[in-house]
Formats: sequence, C-alpha cells, structure tokens
Amino acid sequence: MTHTSTSPHPSPTSRTETDFMGTRDVPDTAYWGIQTLRAKENFPITGIPISSYPVLVKALAQVKHAAVLANYDLGLIDETKKDAIVRACLDIENGQLLDQFVVDVIQGGAGTSTNMNANEVIANRALEHLGRSKGDYAAIHPNGDVNLGQSTNDVYPSALKIAAINGAGQLLEAMGYLRTAFSRKALEFEDVVKVGRTQLQDAVPMTLGQEFSTYAVMVEEDELRVKEALVHLHEINLGATAIGTGINTHPQYAAASCAHLQRITGLPLATAANLVEATQDCGSFVLFSGTLKRVAVKLSKICNDLRLLSSGPRAGFAEINLPPRQAGSSIMPGKVNPVIPEVVNQVAFEVIGNDLTITMAAEAGQLQLNAFEPIIGRSLFASLSHLTAACTTLADHCIDGITANKEFLRSQVEASIGVVTILNPLIGYDAATSIARQALVTGRSVTELVLERGLLSAEELNEILRPEHLANPQDSADIDVQQ
Amino acid sequence: MTHTSTSPHPSPTSRTETDFMGTRDVPDTAYWGIQTLRAKENFPITGIPISSYPVLVKALAQVKHAAVLANYDLGLIDETKKDAIVRACLDIENGQLLDQFVVDVIQGGAGTSTNMNANEVIANRALEHLGRSKGDYAAIHPNGDVNLGQSTNDVYPSALKIAAINGAGQLLEAMGYLRTAFSRKALEFEDVVKVGRTQLQDAVPMTLGQEFSTYAVMVEEDELRVKEALVHLHEINLGATAIGTGINTHPQYAAASCAHLQRITGLPLATAANLVEATQDCGSFVLFSGTLKRVAVKLSKICNDLRLLSSGPRAGFAEINLPPRQAGSSIMPGKVNPVIPEVVNQVAFEVIGNDLTITMAAEAGQLQLNAFEPIIGRSLFASLSHLTAACTTLADHCIDGITANKEFLRSQVEASIGVVTILNPLIGYDAATSIARQALVTGRSVTELVLERGLLSAEELNEILRPEHLANPQDSADIDVQQ
Amino acid sequence: MTHTSTSPHPSPTSRTETDFMGTRDVPDTAYWGIQTLRAKENFPITGIPISSYPVLVKALAQVKHAAVLANYDLGLIDETKKDAIVRACLDIENGQLLDQFVVDVIQGGAGTSTNMNANEVIANRALEHLGRSKGDYAAIHPNGDVNLGQSTNDVYPSALKIAAINGAGQLLEAMGYLRTAFSRKALEFEDVVKVGRTQLQDAVPMTLGQEFSTYAVMVEEDELRVKEALVHLHEINLGATAIGTGINTHPQYAAASCAHLQRITGLPLATAANLVEATQDCGSFVLFSGTLKRVAVKLSKICNDLRLLSSGPRAGFAEINLPPRQAGSSIMPGKVNPVIPEVVNQVAFEVIGNDLTITMAAEAGQLQLNAFEPIIGRSLFASLSHLTAACTTLADHCIDGITANKEFLRSQVEASIGVVTILNPLIGYDAATSIARQALVTGRSVTELVLERGLLSAEELNEILRPEHLANPQDSADIDVQQ
Amino acid sequence: MTHTSTSPHPSPTSRTETDFMGTRDVPDTAYWGIQTLRAKENFPITGIPISSYPVLVKALAQVKHAAVLANYDLGLIDETKKDAIVRACLDIENGQLLDQFVVDVIQGGAGTSTNMNANEVIANRALEHLGRSKGDYAAIHPNGDVNLGQSTNDVYPSALKIAAINGAGQLLEAMGYLRTAFSRKALEFEDVVKVGRTQLQDAVPMTLGQEFSTYAVMVEEDELRVKEALVHLHEINLGATAIGTGINTHPQYAAASCAHLQRITGLPLATAANLVEATQDCGSFVLFSGTLKRVAVKLSKICNDLRLLSSGPRAGFAEINLPPRQAGSSIMPGKVNPVIPEVVNQVAFEVIGNDLTITMAAEAGQLQLNAFEPIIGRSLFASLSHLTAACTTLADHCIDGITANKEFLRSQVEASIGVVTILNPLIGYDAATSIARQALVTGRSVTELVLERGLLSAEELNEILRPEHLANPQDSADIDVQQ
Repeated sequence: MTHTSTSPHPSPTSRTETDFMGTRDVPDTAYWGIQTLRAKENFPITGIPISSYPVLVKALAQVKHAAVLANYDLGLIDETKKDAIVRACLDIENGQLLDQFVVDVIQGGAGTSTNMNANEVIANRALEHLGRSKGDYAAIHPNGDVNLGQSTNDVYPSALKIAAINGAGQLLEAMGYLRTAFSRKALEFEDVVKVGRTQLQDAVPMTLGQEFSTYAVMVEEDELRVKEALVHLHEINLGATAIGTGINTHPQYAAASCAHLQRITGLPLATAANLVEATQDCGSFVLFSGTLKRVAVKLSKICNDLRLLSSGPRAGFAEINLPPRQAGSSIMPGKVNPVIPEVVNQVAFEVIGNDLTITMAAEAGQLQLNAFEPIIGRSLFASLSHLTAACTTLADHCIDGITANKEFLRSQVEASIGVVTILNPLIGYDAATSIARQALVTGRSVTELVLERGLLSAEELNEILRPEHLANPQDSADIDVQQ
Repeated sequence: MTHTSTSPHPSPTSRTETDFMGTRDVPDTAYWGIQTLRAKENFPITGIPISSYPVLVKALAQVKHAAVLANYDLGLIDETKKDAIVRACLDIENGQLLDQFVVDVIQGGAGTSTNMNANEVIANRALEHLGRSKGDYAAIHPNGDVNLGQSTNDVYPSALKIAAINGAGQLLEAMGYLRTAFSRKALEFEDVVKVGRTQLQDAVPMTLGQEFSTYAVMVEEDELRVKEALVHLHEINLGATAIGTGINTHPQYAAASCAHLQRITGLPLATAANLVEATQDCGSFVLFSGTLKRVAVKLSKICNDLRLLSSGPRAGFAEINLPPRQAGSSIMPGKVNPVIPEVVNQVAFEVIGNDLTITMAAEAGQLQLNAFEPIIGRSLFASLSHLTAACTTLADHCIDGITANKEFLRSQVEASIGVVTILNPLIGYDAATSIARQALVTGRSVTELVLERGLLSAEELNEILRPEHLANPQDSADIDVQQ
Repeated sequence: MTHTSTSPHPSPTSRTETDFMGTRDVPDTAYWGIQTLRAKENFPITGIPISSYPVLVKALAQVKHAAVLANYDLGLIDETKKDAIVRACLDIENGQLLDQFVVDVIQGGAGTSTNMNANEVIANRALEHLGRSKGDYAAIHPNGDVNLGQSTNDVYPSALKIAAINGAGQLLEAMGYLRTAFSRKALEFEDVVKVGRTQLQDAVPMTLGQEFSTYAVMVEEDELRVKEALVHLHEINLGATAIGTGINTHPQYAAASCAHLQRITGLPLATAANLVEATQDCGSFVLFSGTLKRVAVKLSKICNDLRLLSSGPRAGFAEINLPPRQAGSSIMPGKVNPVIPEVVNQVAFEVIGNDLTITMAAEAGQLQLNAFEPIIGRSLFASLSHLTAACTTLADHCIDGITANKEFLRSQVEASIGVVTILNPLIGYDAATSIARQALVTGRSVTELVLERGLLSAEELNEILRPEHLANPQDSADIDVQQ
Repeated sequence: MTHTSTSPHPSPTSRTETDFMGTRDVPDTAYWGIQTLRAKENFPITGIPISSYPVLVKALAQVKHAAVLANYDLGLIDETKKDAIVRACLDIENGQLLDQFVVDVIQGGAGTSTNMNANEVIANRALEHLGRSKGDYAAIHPNGDVNLGQSTNDVYPSALKIAAINGAGQLLEAMGYLRTAFSRKALEFEDVVKVGRTQLQDAVPMTLGQEFSTYAVMVEEDELRVKEALVHLHEINLGATAIGTGINTHPQYAAASCAHLQRITGLPLATAANLVEATQDCGSFVLFSGTLKRVAVKLSKICNDLRLLSSGPRAGFAEINLPPRQAGSSIMPGKVNPVIPEVVNQVAFEVIGNDLTITMAAEAGQLQLNAFEPIIGRSLFASLSHLTAACTTLADHCIDGITANKEFLRSQVEASIGVVTILNPLIGYDAATSIARQALVTGRSVTELVLERGLLSAEELNEILRPEHLANPQDSADIDVQQ
C-alpha cells in the first residue's frame, strides 16, 4: 500500500511516496503517484501512453464513478470522500487530466498499471478538490478509497468493454456515412451498363449502379454484424474482484455498481451470470475483433475493386475515375494514383494483423485471469480508430468524387461476347453459340453479327440491350413471351 | 458443351466424350465424365477427393434436386428427365456414388469442377435409371439438363452453406456432449476447495467445481455464438446464375428452387435480397470461421489449464489427475502424458490457421465472384470435422475420467497466504497484513498464526474456511455481521 | 512395456498384446501392435494416417536403422537382432509396409504414437525375418530393442527434419522447373513492348520479357532462400533422449548414430551442440515454414499478375492469353477461366495458414519439450507437397502455353501517355508536359502529337521506341548525346 | 510540379504554394510544402507522424544525400545547389528537423508522401542555407533538384531497408545484452539440480543452469538468424526509378549513388542485379519479418517458462523467484506478479500480428510496384523497436534479479520418480520399475526405497545424484563401468 511521508529534505518540486518496495520522489505537478512511476519505468515499450485512447480513460473514470456511488449506497465510504471522488471522476469523464494517463499502452500486469494510474490520478484530484495536498493519501487513498471493493481484474475488462462499445459507435457512424456515399453513387450510376466479370474474365452485362449498390449492401451487412457482436460486450464482471468469487465485496455491490454504471454510461450493461467465467474469458473480445476483421476483409475487397476498375487511364479497365488527391509521381507528369483506396487496404491489413494478436493473447490466458488484456485493448482500439478514419476518408476523399466513363462502358458491353448469353432465349442456343464463335475469331461484335444475319431487328436489339434488361435479365422473359 | 460420339474403335472398357477442347476416353465404370477428367488432371494438388466431405456431396445433390423440381414446376424440363434426375439425386443424398466425387479438394475455377463432377455423375446415374448408356448426353445432358438454370456461381456457394450448416450441427452436438461432461465434473467437485490463481501466482480460494463450471459455461456460450453465426449461412443465392443478375433464369426460378431446397434439406433457407452482392460476398464464411476460431481459442485455453492443473505428479500443480490413455514414454517407466488435451490444442492451432486461409481467400475475391471458394470450403470442413472429433475425444477420453487430489488441494488452501484476504473484514486489514508477512517469512500457515495469536477460534476458522464461504465469499459478510 | 501373452482362447485372426494399461487383441495381419492400437483409438481426428507422408515414414526407418547400427557398434545389441532390425528398416526405406503406419496425422503425445508405430512395425517385421510370430517381443522388443537408447523426443524431431529436407528437395526441383518455364517465356517475349504499371496506373514502357524474367528471378531467389533455411534443419538432436541430457545413452551413442544416419540418408547432418536446447527448440521449423510462406507470397503475387494480365478477352488487360484447360462456364459459351493460377493462389493461402499453425504450436512449447510437433510436421508436409504440386502444375498447365497479344501491346505503348517520359531528355520537360496534357484531353497519342509539332522525325521516334530502348532507357542517353 | 507564387494578399504567417491541383497556404514555419499538406489531409489515420521512426527519417536523408552527390558527379546539378542540399541532408542525418516529418505512418501512395515530405523539407532547408525564402522553388526545387534522377519507387524501399538494418542493429545489441544476462544466470545456477519436464510431466533430472543456458543459446541462435536475414536487405534498387527500367537516369547513376550511399551509411549496400524485379519485390521484408516472428516465438516461449517456473509462491512450481517490480494487487496483500515476462509475451503477440500484416501487404502487390510498402515499414519498425525494448527490459528488470529455491529443487529431485531412470544401468530395469511403482503408490521417495532394499549404499547414491551426473548422465556410464 502506498503512503506519503514527510521527508526531511523534500525536493521543492517533488513529493515523496512510499509503497511496499520503498520510497520514491514523484513530481509535484503529477496527479499520478509512485505506482504509476514504477509502471512507467517497467514498461518503456512503445512510448505511447494510454492517454492516446481517450475512450478508455473516460470509461475508467466512469467505472470508478459507479463504484464509489455503490460503496456510498452500501455505507462503505463517507459522503465527503464520495463527493470528492465523484468530482474527480467527472473531471476526467469531461476530458480533463487526460495527459495524466501516462503508462505505456503495452504493459505487463493484466492492466494493474492502468487501474493504478486511474486510482492515483483520481485520488490526487479528489484531494485537490478537498483543498489538500497531492499525496495526502491518509485523507483519500488510491487503493483504500478509490479502488474500494474493486480489483484490476474486474475494473479493467469492464472499462475495456465500455470503451470498445463507444469506439464501435464511432465506427458505426463512419460506416453509415460510407454506406450512404456508396448508395448515392449506386443511384447516380443506375443506368450505366457495363460488363460484369467472374474470375477476371468478361461475363455478362450489369449496371455500374448494381456494382456500387453491392458495396452499400456489404457495408450495411457489416454494420449489422458489428452491432450483433457488440451485444456480448455489454456483459461485464464488475463485482468479481480478484477471480470472480467476489471476495471482500458487499453482497449487493455488484448489482449496485452495475446499476450506477448503466446510468452513467447510458449503456444497457449487465452483470455476467458466472463471474468466475467472466473474469477469465476473453471470448467477447475475440468475437468482436473477428467481426472487425470481417469489416476489414470487405473494405479491402471493395478497395481492390475500385483500384482495378479505375486502372488505366489507357492500358487498364478505365471504367471509373477516382478524384485526384495529390500528385502521383515526380517522374511521370500527370500521373494520379488511387491513394485513398490504397490507404484503406493498408488499414485492413493492419486490422487483420491485430486480430491475430488478439487471438494469441486470448489463447494464452491461464486459469482465473487473462494477463494479456492490455495488448487486446491496444489492438482493439487501434483497429476501431483506424477503421473509423478509413471509412470517413474513403467516403470523403474518394467515393464522392467518382465519375464513370459511360460511353466506354456501353461500347464494351456491345463489343462483349458475353452479351450473347442474353440472346439465348430469343435466337436459340445454337445460333447464339455460332455467333459467339464468329465474334471471337473475327473480332466483330455480337450485335453486328445478329443484325447481319437478320436474327433480330435493330429495334429489338436496342430494346433488349436497355440497361434495365441487362441488369435484371429476367424481364427479358417477357419480351420472349411477347414474340 | 460435352457430347458423346460413337468412336470407330472404342475401347471395350471406356467411352469417348467430347468438349470444346477435344475428345477424351473416360473409363466406362465412371459416372463422372470428360470435364471431371480434365479437372483431375489440372489439379493434382492434395490427392484428397471431395468425397472426403460427405456433407458437401450430399448438399450438392440436394441443390440439384431442388433445381430440377423448380425447372419442372416452371415447365422447363419434362417429367421423364425430371424423374430420372430426382432419382439420381436421391441416390447421392442417401450416400451412394460417393466415390464418384473425385476432383481434388483444392481446385481452381471457383468450384466449377465440383459442380461439373456433380452434373456428370447425376446425368449418368439418371441415364442408367432410364436404361440408357453412360455418356448418352443427348438424352440427359450434364449442363443442359442437370445444370439447367444454374451456374457454379450460385450452386456451389449454396451447397457450401448447406454443408457447413450440417457440419456445424455435428459440432454443436459434440460441444453439448463436452459441456455436459464438464458440468458433471463441476457437480462432482463442488466441495473441493483449492487456490485460485491470477497471472500464475497464488490468489484467493475457490472450488474446483467452480473451475469446471467455468469450462461448461465457456462451451455453452460458444454453442450460442456458433448458432448465431449459422443464421447468416442460411441466406443463399440460388437463382443468381453467373453474377447475380439471374441471367437466363425464369423470373420465378429463384423462389421456386429455394422453396424446394427448404423442404429437401429441412432448413429455413432464404434467397438473399441482393443477389449481385450475395454472389461475390464471402462475409458469412469469414464470420462463421471467426466463430470457429473463437471455439478453438477457448478449447485451447481449457486444455492448457487441464495440462497445467494435472502437471506433476510431484514437481507440478498436481491438482487433478487425467485418466491414462497410453504409455507416455519408453524411457521413463510409468510416465503418463496429457495426450488428449494435447491433441485438442493442436486441432485448435490448425483451426486458427484455417481461419487465416479463409480470411486471405475472402479478401482476394475480385469483382462479381470470389474465385477462391474451394479453399474456403476445404478449410471450413476441416475445422468443423476436426473440432467435432476434438470435443468428442476430449469428453470421452479425458474429462470423464478426471479425479481430484482433494486433500492436497485443501492443504494448499490452508497453507496459502491468499487465504488471509478473506479474514480482512474479521480481523482487520492491519492484522491481516502482519500475518501475511509473518507467513511469507517463516513459511508457516496463516491459520496457524491466527490461532496462535488468538484472533479467531478454531471453530470460527473452520466455519470461515468451509467451501461454500471460500467460493462465495460474500456470504462471509453474514458472519461478519453476526459478530 | 508391451508383452505378448498366449491367451487361452485367442482369436484365429488376432493376437493378444499387453501394456501397462492391460491386454488387447490386435489383428494378426497388423505389423503394428497394442500401442498403435491405443493411439488409433485416442486420436480419431482427421482419418488421415501418417502413411500419407511417405517422406516421414522413410525418415523414421532411417533413424531406427542408424540407431541400431550405433547400438551394435557399442556392443549394446547382438548381431542377430541387429541384422533383423536393419532388414526391417530397409524394407520400409524401400517403400514396403507403408500401409502399416496408421496413426492419425494429428495426435497428442509429442510424436510418441508415431515413434511407437514405427517401433512396433519394425519389431514385427524383424521377427518375421527371424521366422518368428508377430508379437513375440521377448525375441525382439519394440521398446527394448528397436527404440534402444532412443526417446520419441530425439527420434521424432530428427525424422521430421530429414523428411522436411527430402520434401524440400522435391519442392526445389519443382521450383527450378517453374523458373525455367518463366525464363523460356522471358526469352520468347524479349521484344514485346508493353506499358508498365505502378499502383495499377499506366506508367512507362517495358518489355513483356522483363515481366517474365522478373518471375524467374523471384523463383530463383526463393530457391536460394529455401536452401539457406534448410541448412538449419540439418542440426539434429539424436542422442538427447528424454530432455537432452542424454540420460541412459552410451557416451559415444550420439556421435555414432549421427555418423550412421549421415551415411544412410546421404545428408550432412550434425548433432546439435546443446542437446537440451535442441530438444525443446522448434525455431528451425518456424524459420523454414516462414521461408515457405515467402515462397507462397511470391507465387500468389505472380498468379495475381497472370490473372490480371490475361483478364478480358475484351473488357480487361488482354495482354496475354493463358492456355485453356477446361470449360469455364456452363452458362456462358466459350468462357475460359484462369483455373491454374487460381489453384496456385489457393495453395498459397493454405501455406500461409499452415505457417500460422506452426507459429502457434512452436510458441506453445513448454519447458524441456514441445508437445505439439505432430501438428508442426503435418502443416509442414502439407505446405511442402502442395507447393511442389502447385509449381509443377503452374509450369506444365499454364506458363508453357502462354501467348502474347503483341500488336495490341505495342499499340497501347504508342497510345500511352507515359511514353512521353522517355522523351524528356530529347524534347525538354516543358514540351513533354504540354504534350502529355494535350494527349490526356484530346485522347490522341503522344507520338502523333510529337510528329505534328515537328519535334522529332518519324525515324527518330521509331528508333527511340525500339524495344531495347524502352526496356533499358538508359541507352536513350546515347541518342541524346548524339543529337 | 510545385511552384510558389506571390499571392496578392499573403497571410503574414503563411506562404502560398501551387501544384497541379491548385494553390494552398502553407504555414511559413513549415519546412514541408503543399504536397505534404495534401498528404496530411488525405491520410488522417493514426495521428502518428513518420517522425516517430527516426531511423527512417535519417535513412531518407542519407539516400537524398547520396543521390545529389551522384548527380553532381555526373554533371547533372551545379555545385551551389549540391552544397546546399548536402547541408540540409546532413542536418537531418544529425537529428535536426525531425518534427518536420509529419505525414501519417499509414498512408496510400507507395511512400510518395514520405518521399515528398523529405524532398520539401530538404529543399526548404537548402534554400534557407542559401539565404533564400522557403518556397522559392525556382532556386531549389523539391522534385526537380532534390528528387532528381529518383522516384519514390526506388528511394522509399532503399530508405526502408537502411532504416531496418539500423533498427536491427539496435535489436541485436539488446539481444546480446539479454543473452549475456541468461548466460550469467546459467553459470550462477550450474550446480542447482531440478526436475526436468516433458509435456508438463515430471521427467528426469537436469540443472537449472542448463535451463538458463538453453535460453542463452536460443537468443544466440536468433541473433545469427537475424544477421542472416539482414544480408538480403542490403540489396537496394536505387537507380530503378519508376519501374526498374531506370528511365531518365544517367547510365552511371545507379552505381554512383550506391557507392555514395555505401560511404554515407557505412553499410555494404549493393545494387540489385535485376532492378525490375527488385522494384516490385517485397520478399526481403517478408523474410526479415518472418525472422523477427521467430525471435518473438522464442522470447514468448522463454517468458512462458519463466512465469511457470516462478508460479506460486506456494501452490505453484516455485522453482525460481522473479524480482518484484511493482505491487501486484490492491486486494491481495504482498502479491507480486511476473509483469516483465508478461509484457514481453504481449510484444511477441504484437510482432506475430505485424508479421501477418506484412505478409498480406506483400502478397497484395501488383505488377511493377508494391503500393503497400508504408504499412510494411510501419509494422517492421514497430516490431523492431518493441522487441528491442522488450529484450532490454527483460534483462534489466527480470533476469538479473532471479533467484533459485535450491533446497526445494533438490528435494523435488530426490522425491521424483523420474530419478529412477538413471538407476536403470546400475540396479537393472526390473528393480527400477518395481521401485517406481512402489514410490507412486506409497508416496515414498525412490532413494529411500533403494536404500531400504539395500540396492545401493548411501555413498553410491550420493555420488550418482551429484549435479554433474544428473545433468550429464552419460558420465554415469563410467560409474557403471567401475562397479
């Protein structure tokens, strides 16, 4: 346990704090204390502090906020301390003191250092609200008061889940924004016929609107899957303390703290039915990350398509034009590259890598606790925030400005051999096959050959090759019937 | 298109078939034909034929069965052909002709070879039912009749999904079986107190029953997650044909074939709302595999624990004993190893690898079709069948025979320092800390020291250390209140 | 230890064997015995027996062969037994009895079951050579004689390494074969100019020969990397026995058995300097698999390119034509798909998944032994054999038959804007930029505009646009100098 | 191309720059220009600028430095410009202007934005050295002068490789430091006997010194593997320009710039033999990352062992004690957790995830360039720097302070049943087996039973159980011989 002693010759700009390992000077400006100091020294890994995840810091404060209210309800802490701690939590929830969350995002100890960082900052802020000096832990103690009835093992995963839910909210907003951008383009391009392709070989006609509509549907389905995966993150283990048996908590603490946390976060959180299981289980993170991986796979597929469809300008597919965003080359004048889809591809590769990191960390958990939750949190927050940025930048800087080479696309449909497929019911399979072969050998177009052979009139052909027929060829059965 | 010609000097044991590339001899015993022959030659990769996935072969026959019924309903095929094709499909659905599905499980062509293998086997079987020779495709044609109104691009993913659903049914049965085994042990061990551990360090007491109950809950939650992921596999794209525009299908075909397929499979299948999207999207496979990965992660975690808890017999945790299954060593007499958990760990590692394969294949799909569905299918079926076997063998050959070293476990609780935590509310934090330190330094037990100091009576200590208090320590608050 | 007793009423077709767990009937035709029987029952995972890896079975026999010779040299086994065991090993090395290796490829027990399967088959074959009955283990004992001085923990990884080296030999042959196919095409296409692309956008000219030469170099570099990684597989731990301390081995055994094994295999094997380390370390497998992953990444990249360059025939890149291998679609007449590159892509995805499986298995090894070597072996052999098949089928069924659309490619170079880059030193950067812009806006070609403006003569342009200049543009500096 | 114009009403604190997309204000304090500004806006992904990789920024400056010297040698740039650019490069090589490298670490465009950021900063610094205003690009132009004869496609991968080599140098230093720490412990513990374990079951005796010596060997072998993988990073493609054909470079430029770069970096760099291949190939990054993955696998394995061996203090293996680094729990007094190995495990999981990201990025490269090199760089630098920190913190904060529970370990050896294995040659296998069984059933020790039965004298037993015999049991053969 930590205490502050009055050292005989204290530094004018530091205070002295003590824990079971000894005594250390802490800068007097710091709201964090000796345990945070030790963590900073123990984990000099990335140089990136946990303050880089504001959603996590806010969630930690919310959990502490709920805990102190529950303790007060149960008569375990007095009103003065409670009020000071609540004020300190609210400060952090409102974005203050973010720079005091200084421990490294990759850390040992199952999140203990993050929890202690929060306990110390809240205690010292509460002391300040009481007009006391930082470090006066006899008045408000980081462990004895701020962490009362809690353990890192229930606080930390609960905060991770709340933070992930809020991070996912931002992602869902960005996904909806991107979906809308695709939908607008689907509408804009609904009359643009083009050659559909399977296995990169020319297949049968479709519209460019269908292509973009597909992307809108993909994103929409992923939004639904993310929401489904989020459901399981609402199950928390607050009240489990060390290993889920709730040792040293009041019988009503779990329910009381969860109720407060629901109100504070506005989220429909629930206490897990089996707290021993919930304390060691990282399954909901694995599934959630797996869903983010699916989002990444789809976004990457879409961006692969966009880069392919815009390849050229002359020796490529040249179906669409992405808006230029920056000079593409210093050596080749006028070259413009698909930089926005490219950055989204790279975010996708990172998210897929993060999912593996999370998988390995989850698998490595032993017995009553998974010690590797910090890397799970870090990987998850990176995936969430980078995917959010990727969706927004893709919508704003790429999709909205896409234009189609309509005439070129129509000429390709007319030149394509696959268009013969739609004529099967009208001119018969044998005639269709014969025309397809002649087209391949001579390089001439199917329509030209159909007209030359007098199989259909120009009017009939025009009717059949209207976009709505090509994209929804079942309608052609009606034409067939009318003949 | 394939045709059989009467070659002037046919081999007595083969027939001649023709496709657009030329003419080939096919063994007369073979129900498969020239396209299957070419696929066998093109893909000599694993030597493992698709017959090794009976769920897939059956699903293919069910799809063909539904398709021919829909075509008959719509007047597109006559009754004689329909009856013969239905009989052939039923034969395969009932497990006949499995050895005729000979193309390699890893194949190019987006499943075309698997679809053609089915078309040829069904056509030749139907011809046989009509009393005709194999290869008499003028009577019943693999493409023109068996594949009528279909494309590999809608048949193959639909069959993959039906097969995955059925494979998952077997897995769910095995998971339920394993869960029950864990639950039985949870009940058997509900009074066995032991030391709980966090980060592999002694923490506070719990029961061995809680430990096994945790495993039951983990499996149960995973069963629920698998069922949720399965929902999305019920959305099929039959009727999409080549790219989802349904080219050359009757307007009522998609609905009619789906209705027949529902009845034949007994599954609540549904036609996707956007068939263009559904034809290129592998998201449901990615999510399903991601869920299997979660199952693997949990099973591996559980098996890691079982191997750790049974480590010893003398220089290990020695909490439980796994039933011996085979000699563990030729060089160390009497050594018995945890071979069953070990094989489950390895299946888990394979499933996690398969998930990556599926992820990469899904990401690589381009434009209107994912050409890499065969490796997705293969990886998925391997994961499903190996996980099923792993769950069953774990239950039968390991869990059922586990015994606990009860006395040793109780003695460890009594010797543990963590037990002091539960005395905090009774003897005060300061006394508890003092006793903890003395215990660490002297190697004596906490209970001994408590008795020596006269802090609690032997009866009180016995009461507090009863299993139900240790495992559910909130009850100790009642004791506290009574004092 | 296993013994055969004369049961009172033995089955006419079975014999009775005994181990520490009890007595079981073994089919009399089986060369394997009771320990193999138990393993078959314990691990019903894949249904695929280890006989599917002939390289592993042969390597096991070679290790046993070397061990018995070393034991004989050291006076630990008599000549009669030695001769019989050597004959049995040679039978297996020559491909006999392969079907007797029946334990599952995924198994618990660190390979013990595979080792025991070998010990039992060799013992019973040796007994047969001595004119004795199978199961007469008093004469030759699977453990006491065949496994003498050995442990699974040194035999199994040593055999895995020898098998991997031999499997890699086959892969290297296939890679060399593929490289040669690329080199032939590089030569054939050395004069075919085309538009090079970066980020899928038209860049500057190159030759198709350079493109294929690149693939040859990629494969060649990977051959070198595979050979380098193989070096580390030559370090074996035979003589380590249980944990590397060499308990119960003769001081000269490690050296003697390694010398025999070198001679038998023809490989420059060496005993690891630190046997304790070597017995628990799977690093050489991780690195070797990582190198196979690199091969997979490159092959996949090459096949992605081949599919892209052959996209079309009309609405794609249409640079090259892959030889048709099979009908591509039942619904679209004449469609031919890139099925061979597609199958290679899928093998690549599998190999990358296998590498993850191996990584996880290696990471999970604890203390003095990695218990998960069987899944490492399985994944490695799958990667090796599938990559070998992929390289061969790619060379035979795809590369050799590729043709180029030379005229179309040249016309694209002439139409491309990027060709202006090479004119910079000749006509000046400002004129080049002006022409590039005009070309983009008007759709006219750079050469046309250069001629129209009289900046260069037709002869000069022809000279500059000769393939050798485009592909090696530094030569144009010479032209520059001449002007 | 970028130009600075005199805008009619320029902001007092900004300058105006122009590129092909238009005109923008750039803060006058910024050394970067309009292209960097656009990149900042296009890629708001991570918020982490490339300045977080000082090794990359320095390497970029070194490449630019070499390029301008080569251009000067070849008469392509005048002395004044050359001198100013060299001074600017040296400033950056010496650590100045780091904060001017502001583009996001995840970016589209194959590194163009990073290259342009460098070109602009160097140009403006060079202008400053000439006494000119920032943005006066007519005097020194970012593209025309600083990027002369270069392309992102050769500059960026060359800089990535130099940076990776230097980052690897730091890692190798840290690995050597860690290896030394293990070696010291190996020596310290060379007489500490303990029970070796296979598959977590008690096996035969060894020394704790052997255990730590194993870790030293593992790290040492990985150092060698890293060095081997580094060799391939020394092959650069400077001079390739856009696609490897070297378009618009002087024939001697590649050789000249490589020679300068060798001298500037002090590294034995070499120009790739086939520049077209080298420009599109990411194989050396894949292999290097695969080697870092191997390092991660081994470190994770070692840390898993350390956590296991230090489990306890009472209900665990309790073989060794890790030095306490921070309080482990607020709720359990005196609990200390293995936080340092835990953080190393987490770094390992991250590195394995990064390797997957790199693998996917490398596989996705198309045709003449891999557009995804930025994510390869980011992942590689994260792996390198985090592994370096992990090795150092593991040595300093964990290994150096480890102590052994020697008496407990010796008592376990004496109590172990596995010790009977070493008596096989002395008392015979049958007696050994009988004693092992009696020990298991009665719980008594093997030594006790041997003495009781009079099989060996106490002196003989003491001699046999000396550490040097247990750890190197082949010596016991000498005892055997003497008897």
